[in-house]
Amino acid sequence: MQPYHAPLRDMRFVLYELLGADRQLSALPGWEEVTADLIDPILDEAAKFCREVLFPLNRSGDEEGCRFENGVVRTPKGFKAAYDLFRQGGWTGLMAAGADGGQELPRLLGQMVSEMICSANLAFGIYPGLSQGAYAALAVHGDEALKRAYLPKLASGDWTGTMCLTEPQCGTDLGLIRTRAQPQEDGSARITGTKIFISAGEHDLADNILHLVLARLPDAPKGIKGISLFLVPKFVPGPDGRPGRPNGVACSAIEHKMGINASATCVIHFDDATGYLVGEPNKGMRAMFRMMNEARLAVGIQGLGLAEAAYQGAVAYARERQQGRALGKPSRPDLPADPILVHPDVRRMLLTIRAKTEGARALAAWVALEMDKAARGGDRARREETEDLAALLTPIIKASFTDMGFEAANLGVQVMGGHGYIREHGMEQLVRDARITLLYEGTNGVQALDLIGRKLTAHGGRFLRRFFHPLDAYLAAKAGDPALAEFVQPLAKAFGRLQQASAAIALQGLKNPSDAAAGAADYLRLFGLVAMGFQWARMAETALAALAEGQGGEADFYQAKLATARFFMARLLPECGALLATVAEGGKTLADFPDRAF
Amino acid sequence: MQPYHAPLRDMRFVLYELLGADRQLSALPGWEEVTADLIDPILDEAAKFCREVLFPLNRSGDEEGCRFENGVVRTPKGFKAAYDLFRQGGWTGLMAAGADGGQELPRLLGQMVSEMICSANLAFGIYPGLSQGAYAALAVHGDEALKRAYLPKLASGDWTGTMCLTEPQCGTDLGLIRTRAQPQEDGSARITGTKIFISAGEHDLADNILHLVLARLPDAPKGIKGISLFLVPKFVPGPDGRPGRPNGVACSAIEHKMGINASATCVIHFDDATGYLVGEPNKGMRAMFRMMNEARLAVGIQGLGLAEAAYQGAVAYARERQQGRALGKPSRPDLPADPILVHPDVRRMLLTIRAKTEGARALAAWVALEMDKAARGGDRARREETEDLAALLTPIIKASFTDMGFEAANLGVQVMGGHGYIREHGMEQLVRDARITLLYEGTNGVQALDLIGRKLTAHGGRFLRRFFHPLDAYLAAKAGDPALAEFVQPLAKAFGRLQQASAAIALQGLKNPSDAAAGAADYLRLFGLVAMGFQWARMAETALAALAEGQGGEADFYQAKLATARFFMARLLPECGALLATVAEGGKTLADFPDRAF
Repeated sequence: MQPYHAPLRDMRFVLYELLGADRQLSALPGWEEVTADLIDPILDEAAKFCREVLFPLNRSGDEEGCRFENGVVRTPKGFKAAYDLFRQGGWTGLMAAGADGGQELPRLLGQMVSEMICSANLAFGIYPGLSQGAYAALAVHGDEALKRAYLPKLASGDWTGTMCLTEPQCGTDLGLIRTRAQPQEDGSARITGTKIFISAGEHDLADNILHLVLARLPDAPKGIKGISLFLVPKFVPGPDGRPGRPNGVACSAIEHKMGINASATCVIHFDDATGYLVGEPNKGMRAMFRMMNEARLAVGIQGLGLAEAAYQGAVAYARERQQGRALGKPSRPDLPADPILVHPDVRRMLLTIRAKTEGARALAAWVALEMDKAARGGDRARREETEDLAALLTPIIKASFTDMGFEAANLGVQVMGGHGYIREHGMEQLVRDARITLLYEGTNGVQALDLIGRKLTAHGGRFLRRFFHPLDAYLAAKAGDPALAEFVQPLAKAFGRLQQASAAIALQGLKNPSDAAAGAADYLRLFGLVAMGFQWARMAETALAALAEGQGGEADFYQAKLATARFFMARLLPECGALLATVAEGGKTLADFPDRAF
Repeated sequence: MQPYHAPLRDMRFVLYELLGADRQLSALPGWEEVTADLIDPILDEAAKFCREVLFPLNRSGDEEGCRFENGVVRTPKGFKAAYDLFRQGGWTGLMAAGADGGQELPRLLGQMVSEMICSANLAFGIYPGLSQGAYAALAVHGDEALKRAYLPKLASGDWTGTMCLTEPQCGTDLGLIRTRAQPQEDGSARITGTKIFISAGEHDLADNILHLVLARLPDAPKGIKGISLFLVPKFVPGPDGRPGRPNGVACSAIEHKMGINASATCVIHFDDATGYLVGEPNKGMRAMFRMMNEARLAVGIQGLGLAEAAYQGAVAYARERQQGRALGKPSRPDLPADPILVHPDVRRMLLTIRAKTEGARALAAWVALEMDKAARGGDRARREETEDLAALLTPIIKASFTDMGFEAANLGVQVMGGHGYIREHGMEQLVRDARITLLYEGTNGVQALDLIGRKLTAHGGRFLRRFFHPLDAYLAAKAGDPALAEFVQPLAKAFGRLQQASAAIALQGLKNPSDAAAGAADYLRLFGLVAMGFQWARMAETALAALAEGQGGEADFYQAKLATARFFMARLLPECGALLATVAEGGKTLADFPDRAF
């Protein structure tokens, strides 16, 4: 693969032209300086770091993988040095509070940096990514002493974090957790149990690892309502705040996986380990959900990053590889064959990746900006609106972006033909790496159930209205604009299908929830397409305006935006019709199948 | 993964109940004994061999891979012994002519055995699979001396074959081949050139390897019309017919791939190697296409085999894994959680695999039986009809079955959640192994272009009518049957869409071939769904008849058939509507995208 180049032009289009994010962010208290003058250099620096430091370690990290010896995990060659540079560059604390030594920058910016990291080296990105989730949970739910002791360490990247949920007998169904917590006189607790699939659970990048562990207190209620969250450091900090005595935490194995080989996936045993309660007893799921929602958005961004990487690799190959001739007349009669970029099916694959990637980038940015605005300004009602929107879109971003990342990587392989199957070329690694994103932090099927079971039903459908209303308003406002008709009309049609599907799901949910569950995955996919389509209509509008203003030198960029928008509407949105049909069909054919005949 | 069990019941359903293959085959000259009494024990034996010998080597073969040292390729532990057993069991010559020491059994039977092999161990199956292709090309195009010298060795499996097409600068576009052939006085030729991606190009399973090599004779016309086919043995047989002096053939490397690690993918250098012309000079593509068409059907069967393997693994996991509760009331209140088989989304994934797998099995069997019948009986017109049908369906079987295999393996991983991502569990290997089937023997995009560019246009659409007419006749005959309405009506609707899409493609082909090419992949997918749907209607009809006859003990089997047929119609066929929409859309949005903006 050619080196990764961050899509800075598109990021700036989204930030400044589509969203006016510089204007909106710098109007918020404390972010007065968050203008293009601040944002651009940060994006440029991140792009450089990803290209020069992280990307070169991506394939070697995959080939070498992590090694496990006697309880110690060694990351691949170069990872420790890269992490040190990453930490020293302040990237671990980009969004952390100033009081913790962080830079307190908007989520929107952090998200774009995350996308770059995931494009360049997903396995590397998982280590600091987990720390961000731990930071968020601790910052909201931890008491003052915990926050003081641990948040600065996470912000500086000196220490890293984990999320310890899964156990051998329990994945999705956290009510089955068996890990126990025994309260001690000093207010701490002793934690005992086995956790599996713990990303970054043990490694050699940092001096200490902070495990956020779900466990049961004695006499806790059964199931999900009896789970508490504890912070369990690998080394218990001494009075000087430095890593002190080893805690009862041991890594017994790492998993051998399909991909993300440079990310250590650990089995962690807690044996009377000292832990500290985070939040209230038996209310661990609340804190965990905060961490989980952060993680789900982050995994969605992983999908986006992988899709962008696949796009770049596939385009480079399609420009270089010469095979066959264009239908009609040769594009390069001077060569023995034309570059495969001329073939309609190759263009179809490239544009499919491109249209979804750019649609996803715009969608994620819109949500992040709304969250930034709610975090810093607006009243309670405004905050609630944003929280609703984020809650609604989190499962959609997680599942539809990761589906996209996997699809993109596979299209990338397909563009490269047999060469895509060879490890040396790097594209197949993206497929293997992307595959996990459809599984962890709740499988994409679980996201779909979250969407229809929790998000659609909450507060009488209030969450849904947070998305439907602005889309409705947009369509109404633009209905009369002939220049936008080619974008707005297909979007309106797709939205109509989403509304019908939503009504069908709601009705099924009342009559027979299994019917709704049977269509959940297709419903989520439909929703994701409409949400991206909304962004595409807005992007097309923005591009048209820029062209009308005569952006001479950049006409290509805006023409490409318009062409991609047209492709999205004409070639990707029609899937919505089929998805509506299967959602409406319900679950009878699933339920009727005799269990023993499977 | 639990051990693989061949789907013998379903194979017998297809053979005897759906197709009446025993009756039809035993009516043909020379196959009088091909009845259930002959077929069943062969299927049973093949199932046993696959379960006991090949399946246990699948994961170890993947982990160990092939090793390359000083020009020698070593297959993984156990492969040589398994191949010896395979050869001794007569499996290599199942369909070979009696005169060559083969068993001369129908293609239909060979195909079912191939499916089992691919389910159990795809990487192993590639070695004898290539030999079958070489046998077919040589049997039809080789002269008597070549046939006498080499066919028995391929039939016995003592020697294996390869197909040497690809070169570094040439994959799909075989007109770019540079390998040269210099005729010698004794009628042989000296072959010089480099071939890449040569499956089974070098290995330790057999005493000799017969390379079928595309090369150019001096003064050959440029491009595809100047290519000849040569047989180049690794060791030139001596007068006693045994492997004699080493030929100028050397393996310089094997590829490190995403999957099929136990299958050696070789770089082969020919350096003044002795070769023998197969067929006429400059007509190599004709012989190669025969081999290629065989190979494409065989790769389709690989997709089918992998899908079946994924299904079995996913079902076993879904029965065992307990997580969450059924909506409504618990199915196993005695356990802490219900088996995940109760969840609608899990059932959706399992039934998607099942419905496509069984539909594909029936479709492939139908085509194979038609080919068997044409090979042994009927007049010239009948043979032509069958050749047309096979030519039409070959790209569809190759591409839609391999898409299915990959989709199935991925659904298998999805059912298993995070556990599916762990190598130890075997499911992710199916994803990696399946990925190659969408690429080799012509990418699936190339299949789609073959379908619209060659197959639809041949003889004024004659090929298409070979499929449309029987389907039309079937729909007309069953239109009035209320018991079949729930199957026939959705099929008729999907067929209507296929007809519209075919008309659109034909019109686009006349006006602007790029428009047709832009929809080729979706058109092929649509065609595959309708072709499977046709089989599902027939299977449902067969199952209804069996139930009406009161197949007491097997009611479950037939009920499951009907339930799967309903699922296929209700949940999988609706995709046809979206596919028609994108086909009809044409290629404008692809062509309009500015090349430099990619």
